[in-house]
Amino acid sequence: MNYYAHPLCRLITEISRLPGIGEKTAARIAFHILSCSKEQVLDLAQAIARVKEEITLCTSCFTFTDDDPCRICRDLSRSSEVICVVETPGDLIALERSGVFKGKYHVLHGVLSPLSGIGPENLRIKELIARVEKGGVREIILATNPTVEGGTTALYLSKLLKPFSIRVTRIAQGVPMGGDIEYLDEVTLGKAIEGRTEI
Amino acid sequence: MNYYAHPLCRLITEISRLPGIGEKTAARIAFHILSCSKEQVLDLAQAIARVKEEITLCTSCFTFTDDDPCRICRDLSRSSEVICVVETPGDLIALERSGVFKGKYHVLHGVLSPLSGIGPENLRIKELIARVEKGGVREIILATNPTVEGGTTALYLSKLLKPFSIRVTRIAQGVPMGGDIEYLDEVTLGKAIEGRTEI
Repeated sequence: MNYYAHPLCRLITEISRLPGIGEKTAARIAFHILSCSKEQVLDLAQAIARVKEEITLCTSCFTFTDDDPCRICRDLSRSSEVICVVETPGDLIALERSGVFKGKYHVLHGVLSPLSGIGPENLRIKELIARVEKGGVREIILATNPTVEGGTTALYLSKLLKPFSIRVTRIAQGVPMGGDIEYLDEVTLGKAIEGRTEI
Repeated sequence: MNYYAHPLCRLITEISRLPGIGEKTAARIAFHILSCSKEQVLDLAQAIARVKEEITLCTSCFTFTDDDPCRICRDLSRSSEVICVVETPGDLIALERSGVFKGKYHVLHGVLSPLSGIGPENLRIKELIARVEKGGVREIILATNPTVEGGTTALYLSKLLKPFSIRVTRIAQGVPMGGDIEYLDEVTLGKAIEGRTEI
């Protein structure tokens, strides 16, 4: 890194800290930034500096928002009776893109992971229970990822929610759209057979 | 993009303008930035904003530098008799990494490309000629890329430099280290045979 002038070296170091970006890509991006106009560079720098100030967590569902409560929690056309529990705000957006779910969300901000030292107290679990205790909730859909941690978290939440006589469901596991049965893993195919539905 | 809060949407748009970064990677980086501490985010934003102010072109070799003339042009232990001509500051750094070349550089900032409307007047060619005219140069090494445009630019420069009775050389073309002869293209192998050396 000694080959670069100091401010360039500093920029490459900062960029290479971002996820999925190695030193070579970071250098390519830094050279690109140097070739941009001053306005374009300041737009990027401001967008980065401001996002942290302007984005907060919605006090109801805990997704990222610039307006509290967030647009989804404020939306009166969406049912408050069904809450879909997700790991991250990114998962929420992916589900929103499908356009199928018309209820409210709850973002945990992680999954239970004893190996990484993440327990129930590190997630937004007590806030979820508080929402259920307030009443008016008919169903909780557990949409954590189909991983060991995601499954464990869903199981943990289902037990925690048992005392409240509400429906607790888990998103379906099976073959994804466009998938090739020949090359899908055996666990997915097993789940697809187990979860088969009448047509 | 309507699913994101406005400042987040703006950040994702800005990041996805960088080379090699699509919308999904941009969203991943934006979520990462939101999860960083305020200091880390400001460090990144400042590194981007400052690089454009602090980095200029060396008035001798035209590489990026924060100090004019640049560290290489100032280095008295390096010969000023040999100038290595490269397309970009990135190429200069790659050659510096090899540690073999101990002369000075000259960065063209591009290659001749009539289709993209880039002619000799858009490159730092007259500045190279001025350096040669000042005297003291014994050899020019043309280290433009082994592409059609790079080759054309090298040929153009070699003709331009003919009136000055100095040595003009082109970097060797052949099989790269670790390459597999079975899978190398025929042009590279042809050049490797033509350029064979005694051992």
